[in-house]
Amino acid sequence: MEMDSQQFREFGKAAIDILADYYEYIRERNVLPSVEPGQLIRQMSEDAPEQPGDWKDVLKDFNELILPGITHWQSPQFHAYYPTGVSYASIIGNLLSDGIGIVGFTWIASPACTELEVVTMNWLGKLLGLPEEFLNCSSGPGGGIIQGSASEATLVGLLAAKDRMIRKLTEVDPNLDPDDIYSKLVAYTSDQCNSSVEKAGVLGSMKMRLLKSDAFGKLRGETLKKAFDDDKANGLIPCYVVANLGTTGTCAFDPLYELGPICNEHNVWLHVDAAYAGSAFICPEYRGLMRGVEYADSFDINAHKWLLVNFDCSAMWVKNGYDLINAFDVQRIYLDDVKTRLKIPDYRHWQMPLGRRFRSLKLWTVIKTYGAEGLRSHIRNQISLAQYFAKLVQSDDRFLIEPEPAMGLVCFRLKNGDNLTKKLLENLTAKKEVFMVAASYRERYIIRWVICSRLATKKDIDLSWKKIKEATDLICLEKIHNKSKISNIESIETLNVCEEKTK
Amino acid sequence: MEMDSQQFREFGKAAIDILADYYEYIRERNVLPSVEPGQLIRQMSEDAPEQPGDWKDVLKDFNELILPGITHWQSPQFHAYYPTGVSYASIIGNLLSDGIGIVGFTWIASPACTELEVVTMNWLGKLLGLPEEFLNCSSGPGGGIIQGSASEATLVGLLAAKDRMIRKLTEVDPNLDPDDIYSKLVAYTSDQCNSSVEKAGVLGSMKMRLLKSDAFGKLRGETLKKAFDDDKANGLIPCYVVANLGTTGTCAFDPLYELGPICNEHNVWLHVDAAYAGSAFICPEYRGLMRGVEYADSFDINAHKWLLVNFDCSAMWVKNGYDLINAFDVQRIYLDDVKTRLKIPDYRHWQMPLGRRFRSLKLWTVIKTYGAEGLRSHIRNQISLAQYFAKLVQSDDRFLIEPEPAMGLVCFRLKNGDNLTKKLLENLTAKKEVFMVAASYRERYIIRWVICSRLATKKDIDLSWKKIKEATDLICLEKIHNKSKISNIESIETLNVCEEKTK
Repeated sequence: MEMDSQQFREFGKAAIDILADYYEYIRERNVLPSVEPGQLIRQMSEDAPEQPGDWKDVLKDFNELILPGITHWQSPQFHAYYPTGVSYASIIGNLLSDGIGIVGFTWIASPACTELEVVTMNWLGKLLGLPEEFLNCSSGPGGGIIQGSASEATLVGLLAAKDRMIRKLTEVDPNLDPDDIYSKLVAYTSDQCNSSVEKAGVLGSMKMRLLKSDAFGKLRGETLKKAFDDDKANGLIPCYVVANLGTTGTCAFDPLYELGPICNEHNVWLHVDAAYAGSAFICPEYRGLMRGVEYADSFDINAHKWLLVNFDCSAMWVKNGYDLINAFDVQRIYLDDVKTRLKIPDYRHWQMPLGRRFRSLKLWTVIKTYGAEGLRSHIRNQISLAQYFAKLVQSDDRFLIEPEPAMGLVCFRLKNGDNLTKKLLENLTAKKEVFMVAASYRERYIIRWVICSRLATKKDIDLSWKKIKEATDLICLEKIHNKSKISNIESIETLNVCEEKTK
Repeated sequence: MEMDSQQFREFGKAAIDILADYYEYIRERNVLPSVEPGQLIRQMSEDAPEQPGDWKDVLKDFNELILPGITHWQSPQFHAYYPTGVSYASIIGNLLSDGIGIVGFTWIASPACTELEVVTMNWLGKLLGLPEEFLNCSSGPGGGIIQGSASEATLVGLLAAKDRMIRKLTEVDPNLDPDDIYSKLVAYTSDQCNSSVEKAGVLGSMKMRLLKSDAFGKLRGETLKKAFDDDKANGLIPCYVVANLGTTGTCAFDPLYELGPICNEHNVWLHVDAAYAGSAFICPEYRGLMRGVEYADSFDINAHKWLLVNFDCSAMWVKNGYDLINAFDVQRIYLDDVKTRLKIPDYRHWQMPLGRRFRSLKLWTVIKTYGAEGLRSHIRNQISLAQYFAKLVQSDDRFLIEPEPAMGLVCFRLKNGDNLTKKLLENLTAKKEVFMVAASYRERYIIRWVICSRLATKKDIDLSWKKIKEATDLICLEKIHNKSKISNIESIETLNVCEEKTK
């Protein structure tokens, strides 16, 4: 039954209170839920209710059925994957967007939807210190757009690169058959790339080479150059490179100043995937890590990871909006007035889907309420908490931090103990009080700890560390008690590790 | 500055009140905004604010700067494109989702996120009367997933079809080079398709043939068969067909019972795009229009068009989830336990991006508060309002309705007057009080009127019609006064049309 606006006021305000309570008491919850696979499915009826229901029952079920089945990404004890952005300002920004329910696929469909995106993407691009040519407010054809995810941005870049290459080659030789060219195109990235990059190659039907990163997890220029040369010698055509600024596993930074010139020389589209770490560039002290970005064709950060904005808000900039329009506008209308066309973009031609929500509203509410100063504080505070955690780990001789901490990520393991480290993570995950995931570094098993929740304080970090230490103590205790039953190398390793502690 | 939870309660509740007021007073606004291109860009500062701001200023700017630049899709006088879904229940569902801020890309990332999607997609699939094999609750490999948009669903289908074809052909002949096959694959749809379908062909690098629809805007079996035969004779490989149930232009329905058997015979993936009209199948009386759906491989409706759910909620079902996993899981892990894998899906392998929001929450809140009964009432009410509007149009001899009204769509034009119809629409759009867009039917220019707002009542329809009539009267008045200046065919046509009225 359609509720009236008075009921909506009550429903909405009750929901707001539920969320405020959720954040006030989030520390009382285990990070991981205690549910079995299929539990919610079994709890729910097999068929939709036939009769209308009361909104109060919705909120009751939300509290009693849904919340218990949630992994609490915003908990200060959540240290897995990378953060997913939330803030009070963003929640309300999205509420307003959903509330008015518009679809902004053309300018007239809702002028403010397009124009606020232009404005906020200029704001954010400037805050990041991106070269002016990427920005809509420059005199050139560059501009920004909010994509749904870094996955999409990577694929958008690949498809635009493909289209641009076909156009360039057929301009030179109109007799070339695009189908011949397609099969020769090659994309490159490092073996440290996020799975979404590999997936983009599959989805875009372009060979995607995962090139060997160096000892620090970086893709180096000479590796890329060799890959280009080898492929060209075999009649293939390098087309697209995805450079990572802050890899998923260990937050490594590819040297754009090495990769860029090589890409430019070969007319290869360079896309920079700075999904997580890119947000830190609003702090000038980190911009050295994007040295060489002026060589790139496209650049993407997930404001919905580390910039307090809710999913979906993947901020992508391109040097030439026309490259996207050519790839995505099926009408392929070539306008003389490129300037007008790009300055107030028809955003549906810059992305894959047709429709689009009023995504920039939440970016706007976040920037307005935090201010540039507040956003930088947030990043600096988070990084300093990560450094504090790293110090705690370093103070315990059983542990080794490797590689070096970067941004909000601290990777660590127990010395000489892959199996032990794995056991530690398994035990911690089983206890559900702290959540981290694993990665591998130089063929060792490492635990990734990431500062995620915007609410986290030093006290929360102390608690996370306490849980980790306690779990480690427990493993050591078990092993020492089993000392008399040593029969394999693993136990000896374990003993060695544990006994370091007790010295 | 991070506001505390108390400030959030105030901010959130004030926003709820703004939205409730928005709906209470929506009829007082012109549907179309009175802004010039670039107006909001000029009103906003060039740079992000450096200092944190008060949430009250955010809401002030929302009211004073943003809302005036909005086209009011939820206004009862909005009759353009197709509806975009909103309801109080959905708004709050999404609020809760944003509030807890989780990313559900694997089961453990938030079990309830995956499982509520399984549940609600089973509910919705059953409400639509889909064959059981499409549903997760069946014993087979079928299942549902919420995609971001029909555009995405169409592209997902195309990529899965491509992958399935390659697998099938290389199974038969392992020496085949996939690159050879790629260039031979062909996709087909009708010339009435939404531009997103044509775009899918471009994005997926597959030739997309737009086949000639019949006099009623339908793609017929014999047309499809001939296209297959012609292409096969030329060494090409039919791979993917998109059938439309409810075309964008005139809401025509392709006969699946003709297209399906042909697709099955040629091992061609049949995707059913029922983006708008599919929601009506929750009313059994309309299911005849999807006769033959059992032949399809995939089926998609935008619950975020006509089922009161906010964007993004494109509900897609497939007969074989394994086809998606094969196409999208880059690890290509073949598990023996297909059953487990499909019953609690790893949804990131059923879609293009990696991450995904808790989309099913808003589908759940809508189904729970409306009940199946309430959803059917909504559809039937909307269709009856469209039929009421059609009667009003028919009562005025100046107008012609064509083609026949379908679902919530009524297409009409002025008799013998393409130019006059165009002028009418231009004038109405300039007045901003009613918003419709044009289409073409049998090479005539028609105006598409769609029932969109869930708030619309008979009184609102009367008002829309009054505005249309008044604008028509005005055009006729102008033309009659200019009678003495007749110098071209257009004016004679106009006169003829107008004089019919005054008879």
